[in-house]
Amino acid sequence: MRVTALSGGVGGARFLRGLLAHIDRTPELAGSTVTVIGNTGDDITLFGLRVCPDIDTVLYTLGGGVHEAQGWGRSDETYAVHGELGALGVPPDWFSLGDKDFGTHIARSLWLGQGLSLSQVTARLAQRWGLPDRGVTLLPMTDTPVETHVVVDEGEGPRAVHFQEWWVRMRAAVPAERFVVAGMDRATPAPGVLDAIRTADVVLLPPSNPVVSIGIILGVPGVRDALRGTRAPVVGVSPLVSGRPVRGHADACLSAIGIPATSAAVATLYADFLDGWLVDDSDADVAMPDGVRTLARPLLMTDIPAAADIAGAALDLGRDLRGR
Amino acid sequence: MRVTALSGGVGGARFLRGLLAHIDRTPELAGSTVTVIGNTGDDITLFGLRVCPDIDTVLYTLGGGVHEAQGWGRSDETYAVHGELGALGVPPDWFSLGDKDFGTHIARSLWLGQGLSLSQVTARLAQRWGLPDRGVTLLPMTDTPVETHVVVDEGEGPRAVHFQEWWVRMRAAVPAERFVVAGMDRATPAPGVLDAIRTADVVLLPPSNPVVSIGIILGVPGVRDALRGTRAPVVGVSPLVSGRPVRGHADACLSAIGIPATSAAVATLYADFLDGWLVDDSDADVAMPDGVRTLARPLLMTDIPAAADIAGAALDLGRDLRGR
Repeated sequence: MRVTALSGGVGGARFLRGLLAHIDRTPELAGSTVTVIGNTGDDITLFGLRVCPDIDTVLYTLGGGVHEAQGWGRSDETYAVHGELGALGVPPDWFSLGDKDFGTHIARSLWLGQGLSLSQVTARLAQRWGLPDRGVTLLPMTDTPVETHVVVDEGEGPRAVHFQEWWVRMRAAVPAERFVVAGMDRATPAPGVLDAIRTADVVLLPPSNPVVSIGIILGVPGVRDALRGTRAPVVGVSPLVSGRPVRGHADACLSAIGIPATSAAVATLYADFLDGWLVDDSDADVAMPDGVRTLARPLLMTDIPAAADIAGAALDLGRDLRGR
Repeated sequence: MRVTALSGGVGGARFLRGLLAHIDRTPELAGSTVTVIGNTGDDITLFGLRVCPDIDTVLYTLGGGVHEAQGWGRSDETYAVHGELGALGVPPDWFSLGDKDFGTHIARSLWLGQGLSLSQVTARLAQRWGLPDRGVTLLPMTDTPVETHVVVDEGEGPRAVHFQEWWVRMRAAVPAERFVVAGMDRATPAPGVLDAIRTADVVLLPPSNPVVSIGIILGVPGVRDALRGTRAPVVGVSPLVSGRPVRGHADACLSAIGIPATSAAVATLYADFLDGWLVDDSDADVAMPDGVRTLARPLLMTDIPAAADIAGAALDLGRDLRGR
């Protein structure tokens, strides 16, 4: 089975890890392949190095190297480089990277500087983390450098800050007036992205942030059209449980675009291509958009088996929609 | 007293640390300033980052952060970044940098990328290590990127390798046919370098490698002429004890340029500007070039007081030569 998934960071990565676990435990899914289209709007140049937070979170999580409690970054990290940069007074001081993580960013920046595309760089990193051996292809949504900026007003008029500054330094507590994706007007989908959507058997939207993760990927020219046009059923997993994001600040992001923080409202963002919608049990009785087959399941990814159950339910819903 | 010193890496840095200790313990030298002109021929771009081995060794040694037994790099280092780059298969595998050291190189590369000159970058690093507070100004010999290459023949004809590859990977065991400094033809002395030589009260040549450290600095257009022309006495310290380098591979370097590994022969390399020559006791009875006042002292820098004694003897010789 060819599965294609759009993914942001922690939520997407944990869902994908569950998906792989579900495939591993399901004999009839043996030989399935998973193509992940990762959000690169979070990407940022820090300390002169190119950092791809969502891509790296997927790599580390699927490769078994993630800091489990934190959800991102490497396990068993040290912070010697960060400490030295602090001693040298190199800003920003609000973004902390571990030493092993720096290794990733140094390699990525070196390779990009040598002329490799982000796709090619990501393929090398995926190799290091064993993704090809697990049938996983990780594609950045685009090789064009794009950056999500957030327009905020802290009392001195509106100004745009990098998404990471809003997310990490401001903890999304300063209201976002809107999101602007610098570079998106000249972005093209990375090689393989549109084909992965068009030729999939099922397309999954993990419970990633619908605005600044999935929403950004949908903004890459051609992606939304490919989702509308694909013969594959598109099944989404709601990022909201009991009207709140399980983690992150999806509610603050939805508020910025005038969308209520409800599973039903999030589904409307995808209404033009969504076929199936997996919601939390707490939303079982809520009316969802017409024409979308909705299924309620417990959506808390408390551990890998729980995530596997959720991914399995999404996949089964997709298989049902295409008649298996 | 205004002291100007040319310096390579470990030997130069230890000598300079001794010089500062000697100034600190000598009341009549209170308020002295030391300008160090550092060799940048060793500089290399590794993992996409600009590394200045000799400059960094001076910074770390004078700033109290050096790995004492090793002579270079940082004390109490970890190697997480290096390990990750190894896992990613990023060459070279023969040059190991510690995590704190990586912090230096990341900051330097960032600042160079922002358009700062190597002089400006070095001044920032010197600030972090407290050098200005000790009256020390550290100047790279040039802001022009230059690199010492070594022509070797491993049986397949001559080829040029970076100095660091010859020094570190080959351990200088493959005979050097000659040294070529890429970029030197278009290099200019960094701001302040020539003035520091011209206006000094004493110019010192620490026991650095006469070919690939001091010799490279002397090759920067204008430096040798400034040494010939300065009114300050120029006093050198022999890098050889009993006809052997105390550390490093000065003998292999001298051999490549057809010079015997003796204190007398090294003095001839400096004959056009050298006024005083400090040699080891073991060379006390050896004839040195005419017109150079020679003094014999124990030259092993076994600890900081020993280095201070050597630096003090060199400084005193200079002061004698200029009539104090």
